[in-house]
Amino acid sequence: MPASPVTYTFLGPEGTFTEAALLQVPGAEAANRIPASNVNAALDKVREGSADAAMVPIENSVEGGVTATLDAIASGQELRIIREVLVPISFVLVARPGVAVSQIRRVSTHGHAWAQCRLWVDANIPGVEYVPGLSTAASAMGLLEGGAHYDAAICAPIVAQEQPGLTVLAENIGDNPGAVTRFVLVSRPGTLPERTGADKTTVVVPLPEDHPGALMEILDQFATRGVNLSRIESRPTGQYLGHYFFSIDADGHIGDARVADALAGLHRISPATRFLGSYERADAQAAYVAPHTSDEAFQAAHEWVGAIVRGQASPSETVSGASPTA
Amino acid sequence: MPASPVTYTFLGPEGTFTEAALLQVPGAEAANRIPASNVNAALDKVREGSADAAMVPIENSVEGGVTATLDAIASGQELRIIREVLVPISFVLVARPGVAVSQIRRVSTHGHAWAQCRLWVDANIPGVEYVPGLSTAASAMGLLEGGAHYDAAICAPIVAQEQPGLTVLAENIGDNPGAVTRFVLVSRPGTLPERTGADKTTVVVPLPEDHPGALMEILDQFATRGVNLSRIESRPTGQYLGHYFFSIDADGHIGDARVADALAGLHRISPATRFLGSYERADAQAAYVAPHTSDEAFQAAHEWVGAIVRGQASPSETVSGASPTA
Amino acid sequence: MPASPVTYTFLGPEGTFTEAALLQVPGAEAANRIPASNVNAALDKVREGSADAAMVPIENSVEGGVTATLDAIASGQELRIIREVLVPISFVLVARPGVAVSQIRRVSTHGHAWAQCRLWVDANIPGVEYVPGLSTAASAMGLLEGGAHYDAAICAPIVAQEQPGLTVLAENIGDNPGAVTRFVLVSRPGTLPERTGADKTTVVVPLPEDHPGALMEILDQFATRGVNLSRIESRPTGQYLGHYFFSIDADGHIGDARVADALAGLHRISPATRFLGSYERADAQAAYVAPHTSDEAFQAAHEWVGAIVRGQASPSETVSGASPTA
Amino acid sequence: MPASPVTYTFLGPEGTFTEAALLQVPGAEAANRIPASNVNAALDKVREGSADAAMVPIENSVEGGVTATLDAIASGQELRIIREVLVPISFVLVARPGVAVSQIRRVSTHGHAWAQCRLWVDANIPGVEYVPGLSTAASAMGLLEGGAHYDAAICAPIVAQEQPGLTVLAENIGDNPGAVTRFVLVSRPGTLPERTGADKTTVVVPLPEDHPGALMEILDQFATRGVNLSRIESRPTGQYLGHYFFSIDADGHIGDARVADALAGLHRISPATRFLGSYERADAQAAYVAPHTSDEAFQAAHEWVGAIVRGQASPSETVSGASPTA
Repeated sequence: MPASPVTYTFLGPEGTFTEAALLQVPGAEAANRIPASNVNAALDKVREGSADAAMVPIENSVEGGVTATLDAIASGQELRIIREVLVPISFVLVARPGVAVSQIRRVSTHGHAWAQCRLWVDANIPGVEYVPGLSTAASAMGLLEGGAHYDAAICAPIVAQEQPGLTVLAENIGDNPGAVTRFVLVSRPGTLPERTGADKTTVVVPLPEDHPGALMEILDQFATRGVNLSRIESRPTGQYLGHYFFSIDADGHIGDARVADALAGLHRISPATRFLGSYERADAQAAYVAPHTSDEAFQAAHEWVGAIVRGQASPSETVSGASPTA
Repeated sequence: MPASPVTYTFLGPEGTFTEAALLQVPGAEAANRIPASNVNAALDKVREGSADAAMVPIENSVEGGVTATLDAIASGQELRIIREVLVPISFVLVARPGVAVSQIRRVSTHGHAWAQCRLWVDANIPGVEYVPGLSTAASAMGLLEGGAHYDAAICAPIVAQEQPGLTVLAENIGDNPGAVTRFVLVSRPGTLPERTGADKTTVVVPLPEDHPGALMEILDQFATRGVNLSRIESRPTGQYLGHYFFSIDADGHIGDARVADALAGLHRISPATRFLGSYERADAQAAYVAPHTSDEAFQAAHEWVGAIVRGQASPSETVSGASPTA
Repeated sequence: MPASPVTYTFLGPEGTFTEAALLQVPGAEAANRIPASNVNAALDKVREGSADAAMVPIENSVEGGVTATLDAIASGQELRIIREVLVPISFVLVARPGVAVSQIRRVSTHGHAWAQCRLWVDANIPGVEYVPGLSTAASAMGLLEGGAHYDAAICAPIVAQEQPGLTVLAENIGDNPGAVTRFVLVSRPGTLPERTGADKTTVVVPLPEDHPGALMEILDQFATRGVNLSRIESRPTGQYLGHYFFSIDADGHIGDARVADALAGLHRISPATRFLGSYERADAQAAYVAPHTSDEAFQAAHEWVGAIVRGQASPSETVSGASPTA
Repeated sequence: MPASPVTYTFLGPEGTFTEAALLQVPGAEAANRIPASNVNAALDKVREGSADAAMVPIENSVEGGVTATLDAIASGQELRIIREVLVPISFVLVARPGVAVSQIRRVSTHGHAWAQCRLWVDANIPGVEYVPGLSTAASAMGLLEGGAHYDAAICAPIVAQEQPGLTVLAENIGDNPGAVTRFVLVSRPGTLPERTGADKTTVVVPLPEDHPGALMEILDQFATRGVNLSRIESRPTGQYLGHYFFSIDADGHIGDARVADALAGLHRISPATRFLGSYERADAQAAYVAPHTSDEAFQAAHEWVGAIVRGQASPSETVSGASPTA
């Protein structure tokens, strides 16, 4: 832990949902916060040491981070997810003061945000032209610069709150009112977050071979240890069509015997398996652990095998006399 | 290893196929050899220390030992199989000198031997009456005593060879000319036989529950570690109909990482699993070990997980700088 | 259904537990009942047509029928189990009138019955000599003939009840007071017993190959259709050590879609799979059927696939217009 | 087949890789080809009947079609994939005549194309500003209009070939020289493409429940029938985090018995499973079919079960005589 203040980076610019996620981290408000122009740039700052950790979207993002994050974190120098943050996603339509909804001809936002507001757009401002933006915040801020080629932007509520030059014309315009995006805080390998009993472990597992059972063997490593999976996504490795890796979130912490055992099994099947972190679940939902997959069961099994290998009978046995050579 | 001579017991009496199996053990000819009247009696001698090891039939026996052995070894004070012996089974028909085949009216032997010579009997001495015997040897020896209620006996060739009072009327009268019986040498827990690369491990696994997947979960412990099974037999526990344990022979030695790992898995699922020994295969056939189930793969996986838990990146990584608290 | 009276055969002689099982079959008391000297002989009578059905023990027998039955029914001309019968097993010690327990020196019975009364014998008549008998009934009846070489017999209660020449010296002398033996009534292939909702199906499945997953593939055929197994026993084929077939009782009737589908799967994996019958459970315990393995689910799946193959959309779809060639 | 000319739609505008894919379809060059502004719009044209089929990207796209396609085809009125097309992806950098590489300050293209040319950009035109475009073709064509806010565009080679107003400044600037995008031609349900022996079947399977084995049960439907999977992708359903459906490409045609049987199994487990088509593989690689999963094996199994249900023995049996009622 450095004496110097902690430095965070995030998928910028300021005003994106990602910054909102970062601000949920205790202490982040007082820390250095450096926006990065894309996920790779953010992770590179962590890898090279100019930032201590990066907040990036990993699931259901509006800023295009999901697959980029999955891919960026799956290769290159090893990183660790140390925290997850859930951010409810809601969109607002903003314009410069004095602009009415009826005057809007062209709207800018990030492509993913645009896709998530199609129903509202079709119903309320049909026929407007879409102008792609680098991010929701960039589109909104562009309205404040001279020469914007559009009349309105779709962005996160926090941008509008902080900019007196923007007026909110409509709120909650997303098609899915319960939308949530999941972000992760990524650091360099170091001390693992402690077990809380409500943890998640993220791994990346390249499919070892293209045969009917390969994926099943991988999943079986979890299933036979009673480890539930909360997310599984396939991603092309980019080497050739049909070659995949799987990004998997499993319930539990590598400090749990069942998870450690499952990971060891993965490593044997697919030695390039990458560990991306064990960290507390944002929803704090404890995992169910069947008796035969508890730490105690693993410990008992380990001791049982060990005693046999040392030539002992079970503790309850009374054994005496000599053993013949045979 | 006692200074006093080794004492073996075996399913007797003398002259059975079991004694033939025992005589294949190096040094057994010079050792004390005490016949026992049944498998339980033989194993009890070992348990109480009056014998160092017992030779008993375990598979395809002619003396009725198979299920008795499986059951006797599966409960009570723990024992260990330390060697297996294969004995080709062939039967002879014996009578007192001067008796012709045509004069035979009643034949005695053990029920299992009788069952294995039915074709020959039906073809050559049809209509003879069967007189149950305690063992093939007992039936043969009974001919030498006064008052035998039968004219001939079916027994092992060695009995006839050693008894001048018996004449062999027919040889190789078994229905299956390639018949082999497997015997095991059973001792008290102690030093395990060394790994040879061509080993077998025997376990007894009670079915934890009566549900569709219970047996599959057990078998899966072997299959996911690439451990082949050479024998699997179900036996009722005797507690109630439909309650079973499984007696299983697996390829490999508990000193092999994949076998130790499979056994640990069994213990978790069915904590009453009993280890009955790791010992060299009689046929010396080495097990195939897939790369991902080798000792090296298990060791590498173990070290990989260990390094992660200690907070390290993979060895090839260069990691520097501070990690934030999060 | 012949106009002539039905003829049954059973593993004899009269007075065995097997005859007791046969007498539970409605109408059997008035039918012809022909004892057979062994299981093969009984089944052969059915195969050749001299009996309509045979009652033989199949599980936990005292007369030595279990493995003999499993093997005899698994090969040769096809047969069908059409009913199962459960008989509580209890043993009595009988002697000729006037003989006291203290006078007993030699006891005869079938070997399996002897094994099941060892605790009582050791506690009450220790040191008696065992004389093997062909069956419990044969041993008992032998006491009535002149020249018996033993003083007492262990047999079923019904034998003693019907023979005034025998006195019961002790009742319920079996080691396991809740012992039950399961018998099956075996006929030639014909009309299957009707589905009752509480049925059992028996099959014999040769292990197709000696590889780690072969047995699992077989069990998987049941598990993936939610079919519970109430019995599974391995039996050597007798061809060579390590070559097995499995005798399996599954919950349900071949008229149930999930059972028919599982059997079709078995046939594909192991084409020599043999169907031994679907029949009502003696305990009338209905099988649990998960919704996705119900007849309705199979029917719906079948129709869904059929509609697709015929080029239709789902029923709820409205499809119009032309389809291009491509 | 309509007498009127076939009308195709595709993810436009003209000049995208998707149009290149469409032009590979026999007859497409002479047919009506209507660009659509997004995947949903293209599929809607097919659903409403204004187009006969739509060409859309489905795997590794540069125009943002992949997840949009997976999602759009997975819900709404049923559609069918009737053909797949592979297009090698290569990028060119274009500008107006007279513009040198050294003069480029701002570059426009689709976001996915931008991501796939990062290495070349960083090495050759470092520091340029990125301007998001609606498609690669739109960015290129934008250079021809007055008022473009950028100096160059990244697009497909075909755009540059057809536009004399554009100069190619650099070719093959993609990071992955072997990149291929897979497109599918989508139609309304109707006659299925014929089996060729080298086919693919695409299905969408909602995960029925969030439990450790749900995905394995789905995969098991394929594995137990020996059906290989060439693609599996998870997609959020959008209902809540952690709720997925799987988009799966399996080897084989629904006209193959093993595929039909696997699909029936899927339907039972997850009744909302959606069939998206069986069609010839673009690479014409025939599937390996194990003997026990061949059409013949399924047919034989079906007939075997059918004969049993009808009360018959196996064809080779000779059965005679009456069967008792029992």
